[in-house]
Amino acid sequence: MGKQIKTAITPTRTEDYPEWYQQVIKASEMAERSPVRGCMVIKPWGYTLWENIMGALDGMFKATGVKNAYFPLFIPLSFLEKEAEHVEGFAKECAVVTHHRLEKGAFGKLVPAGPLNEPLIVRPTSETIIGESFSRWVGSYRDLPILINQWANVVRWEMRTRLFLRTSEFLWQEGHTVHATPEEARERTQMMLDVYARLAEEFLAMPVIKGRKTASERFPGAVDTLCIEAMMQDKKGLQAGTSHFLGQNFARASEIKYQTAEETEEYAWTTSWGASTRLIGGVIMSHGDDDGIILPPKVAPAHVVLMPIVRKPEDRIKVMAYVERLEKELKDTFYHHRRVVVEVDERDIGGARGWEWIKKGIPLRVEIGPRDMAENSVYVGRRDKGHKDKVSLKRDHFVGDIVNILDEIQDTLFERAQSFRKANTIAIDDKKEFYEFFTPDDLEKPEIHGGFAMSHWCGKDQCESKIKEDLSVTIRCIPLDNPSENGKCICCDSPSAERVVFAKAY
Amino acid sequence: MGKQIKTAITPTRTEDYPEWYQQVIKASEMAERSPVRGCMVIKPWGYTLWENIMGALDGMFKATGVKNAYFPLFIPLSFLEKEAEHVEGFAKECAVVTHHRLEKGAFGKLVPAGPLNEPLIVRPTSETIIGESFSRWVGSYRDLPILINQWANVVRWEMRTRLFLRTSEFLWQEGHTVHATPEEARERTQMMLDVYARLAEEFLAMPVIKGRKTASERFPGAVDTLCIEAMMQDKKGLQAGTSHFLGQNFARASEIKYQTAEETEEYAWTTSWGASTRLIGGVIMSHGDDDGIILPPKVAPAHVVLMPIVRKPEDRIKVMAYVERLEKELKDTFYHHRRVVVEVDERDIGGARGWEWIKKGIPLRVEIGPRDMAENSVYVGRRDKGHKDKVSLKRDHFVGDIVNILDEIQDTLFERAQSFRKANTIAIDDKKEFYEFFTPDDLEKPEIHGGFAMSHWCGKDQCESKIKEDLSVTIRCIPLDNPSENGKCICCDSPSAERVVFAKAY
Repeated sequence: MGKQIKTAITPTRTEDYPEWYQQVIKASEMAERSPVRGCMVIKPWGYTLWENIMGALDGMFKATGVKNAYFPLFIPLSFLEKEAEHVEGFAKECAVVTHHRLEKGAFGKLVPAGPLNEPLIVRPTSETIIGESFSRWVGSYRDLPILINQWANVVRWEMRTRLFLRTSEFLWQEGHTVHATPEEARERTQMMLDVYARLAEEFLAMPVIKGRKTASERFPGAVDTLCIEAMMQDKKGLQAGTSHFLGQNFARASEIKYQTAEETEEYAWTTSWGASTRLIGGVIMSHGDDDGIILPPKVAPAHVVLMPIVRKPEDRIKVMAYVERLEKELKDTFYHHRRVVVEVDERDIGGARGWEWIKKGIPLRVEIGPRDMAENSVYVGRRDKGHKDKVSLKRDHFVGDIVNILDEIQDTLFERAQSFRKANTIAIDDKKEFYEFFTPDDLEKPEIHGGFAMSHWCGKDQCESKIKEDLSVTIRCIPLDNPSENGKCICCDSPSAERVVFAKAY
Repeated sequence: MGKQIKTAITPTRTEDYPEWYQQVIKASEMAERSPVRGCMVIKPWGYTLWENIMGALDGMFKATGVKNAYFPLFIPLSFLEKEAEHVEGFAKECAVVTHHRLEKGAFGKLVPAGPLNEPLIVRPTSETIIGESFSRWVGSYRDLPILINQWANVVRWEMRTRLFLRTSEFLWQEGHTVHATPEEARERTQMMLDVYARLAEEFLAMPVIKGRKTASERFPGAVDTLCIEAMMQDKKGLQAGTSHFLGQNFARASEIKYQTAEETEEYAWTTSWGASTRLIGGVIMSHGDDDGIILPPKVAPAHVVLMPIVRKPEDRIKVMAYVERLEKELKDTFYHHRRVVVEVDERDIGGARGWEWIKKGIPLRVEIGPRDMAENSVYVGRRDKGHKDKVSLKRDHFVGDIVNILDEIQDTLFERAQSFRKANTIAIDDKKEFYEFFTPDDLEKPEIHGGFAMSHWCGKDQCESKIKEDLSVTIRCIPLDNPSENGKCICCDSPSAERVVFAKAY
C-alpha cells in the first residue's frame, strides 16, 4: 500500500536535479507552464517573492538617484537595426508583430489583417527604443546624467525553456543611463553591479562573484559587461545580473549627443543593467532541499504560518482566539522595514498541512494546540532545519525573538551556500585534471559534477571556444578582485596573468 | 519684445481644451508620444504618479484578499475565439504576432521569418488566457473563491490616440475572480467598484458616479458592467474604472468547473475589473488650471519643493544648511502612510524655476532666502491658489502643519471638482432642451459645452443609438443609487422609471 515517503520532493536532488527543480516549483505553487509556447504563469506565491525582490531592488536604485519610467513594448525593426551587433544578437529569437487586426477569412476563420508598413519587434531589451527618447531629452551637459529604470516584460523567443531560468517572456528591470564622460558611465556600471551583488547576498542569501565577461559573452553592442555569478547546488553557474558599459555605441546608433560646457557637441556615454525573474530560479537552486524550496526570510512571501490544532470541536474558539492574538502581535513586528507576514492555516487536513508549507519554503511553521496554550508556548519548526526538528518555545519569547530567528535563518542559508561554493571551487592548473573535473563519470546519465574551476586563460577566443566545444564549459567571468598571478593557459599553455572562473552554466 | 505671459500654458482651457491638455502634459514632463504608433513614453514625473496610484490600489486590493500573479503577454488566437462576443469586441484592434525571428531577405534587409503555426495576439485583456489557468486551478468548491490581480501592459490598436486617455499600449491592472455562486460574484463586482470609487474620490480627489453600463456599452462578453464615471473640466465624461460580472460566460468558454459539496459539477461564476493609466488623464482634466496640472497630494510624485534663494555667493553655505535641515525634518514626517517627498531645486535660473514646479503641479513651493532665515520663516506657495498668492509662515509652524496643509489642498481639489460637476449636471426633460444642451453654439469651432444631463430613458437600444448618432452623446451609466421616478424617455416619450446620465465622453 504505497511506498514510504522519505522526502517531499521526488526525485531527490542527487537522483535528478533538473527534474527536482521542476517538481519543487510545482509543489511550491510558484509558477507553471502556460499553453503559450515558452511563456510561464507566475502564481501568487512566486509573484509575491518577485514583488519583494522588486521592492528591495527598487529601493536601492532610487537611493542612487534612479527614477522609474516606461517605454513602448514595441520596437520598430529599423530601430533595432541601428546597432549592428545588437540586432545580430537578437534577430534569431524575437516575436514579430506584422498585423494590427483580425478579420474573417476563408470558412469564417479569423486571420491576421491590416498589415503594418514596418514590422514591430516585441522588445527583447530596450536600448534602441529608450535611446530614441534619450536623443530628444539630452541637449546640454546640464541635462546629464540621466538615470532611468523600467520594470517591464520582455520577450526572447527561446526554443528550450525552463521555468524562471529561460522563458520566452520574462519580467525584469532594465536600467538605462546617459553620462557626459566614460569615467562616470563606468562608475555607474560598477555601482549597479554592486547593487545586484547586494541584492543577491543580503536579500537572496546567494553568494556571488563579481566579474567581467569575456568578449564572446558580452551583451550584443556593449563595450564591457560586468556580471554577478552564483553557484547552484548542482555546481553549475548562474548569471544573476549584468551591468553593461555601452561606450558610445548606442549613443551613436540613437544620436544621443550633448553640448559640452565648451559648446562642442559630443556623443554621450551610456550604460544598461538588468536583473530578471531568473533570480527566483537562483533562489530555488541555492537553498532548496529534498523537501522543496527554502525561502530567505528577507524576501519570503510570508514569514510564518500559524497552524491551530483543534482535536475537539469545543477547543476551537479558545485556540483560535489564542492564534489570532498571536497573529496580531506578530504582524505588528517589523522585520527589516516590512512587517512580519503571517499566514493562518486552519484547514483540517492532517499532516498534509505542515508538508504543504514545508514545500512552499516558509521560514517558520508554528503549531498551536490546547497543550501548547496550557504551557503558554508554541511549537516551532524552522525551514532551515529538518522537518522533525521542532521546538517548544515560550510564546512571548517567540514573539520577542522572531526577528532574530528570521535573521538566523537568513544567515544560515547564506553560510551554507557560501560553504558549498567554497567546497566546489578549486584552482586547476593541469589540463587533464580540468577535463576530468568537468566530465561526468557516467556519460549516459549525467550526474552532478564539476564546480567552479579557477584556471588560467591566455585571453584568446579560440581557447575559450575549444573548451566550450569539448566540455560545454564557459568562462563565467574574470573576477573583478582577481589577484595578478603568472601562469599558463589551461588550454594552450601560453602565458596568462590571471585566473578566470570556468563552469558549466544555466 | 515678447508678449506678456499671462498663463503658463498656451492655449488656455477655454481657448482650446484638447490642445491645453497636450500642452499641460508636455509642460509637466509626464509623458510624450513615442515613434511607435499610438504608444507613449511615460516619463518619471508621470510614472511616479502611476506608482502612487498603483500603491494605493494594490493596498486596497490586498485588503480584500486579492493576490497578484502574472500571466502570458500572448494569447493564442484560438483562446480569444472561445467567447464569441469577446473576440468580436477586440478583433478590430489587436496586435498580431505571426513570426518568431528575423532573417536576411532580399538586399540583405531583415524580414520576419519563422512563421508561427497559430498567430498570437498581444493581450488586449486577459480573461481567456487567465481562464485557461483557472480551469486547471479549480477542482472543488473548496478551491473557491480565487481572487487574482495582474499589473500588466495591454495593447489595443487605436487609430486615434491621446496621451493617457487612449493609447495603443497602456498600463493597467486587471482583476479576475472565480466564485461558486452568482451572488458572491456580484458582490465581488460591487466591492471592486467601491475600491475604484474610493481611489478616485479619496486619492485622486475626483468625484465619481457609480453606475451600470447599458447593454451596448458593456464589456464584450460580460453580463453586467459597473463603472465609475467622472466629469472632466470640459464637461465631458470619463470612464475611470470598470468592474464586470461575467456570469458563466467565460467559465463556459474556458471550462472553469467545480465540484459542489453535493458532488455535482457546475460552471463557476467569474468577474473581472480594471483601471488604467487613463486615470492620469482624469487627474489632469479634473484639477488642471491655465498654469498646468495640479496634483492631489495623496498621489503626487513629490509634495514640496524647496527653492533656496542665494543672491550673494557668501550666503550659499548658510542657506543650504537651513534648507537641508528643513528637508530632513519634512522627510521624517508621515503623510498618509508615506513620508513627505521633498525636492530641493538649487538651480539658479530665476523665475523659470518656480514656474517649472507650478507646471508640474507640485502641491507646495517653498522659497528660502537670507531674509526668511532671519525671521525663521519660509515663503510658501500652494498650487491650489494663484501663483502670486504666497505667504510667509514660521518655519516650525510650516513643518508642524504640513500634513494639514496637504490635506487642505486635497480637500479643496475634491470640493472644486464636485462643485463643478454639480454646476454642470442638470435634469432635462425636454427633448429640444436636451439637443440644445449638447449642441455647441459655433459648430465650426466647438467650444466647451454640455455636461451631465440626467434624463429619462425607456431602455431601448434605438433611442440610445439615435442620440449617439445625432449628438455623439452616450449614456455614461445608470446610477446605482438612482431613485425610482416616473417619466418619459427623452428620445421617444415612452414611459421610463428612472433617469440616466447622458454626456459626451472620452
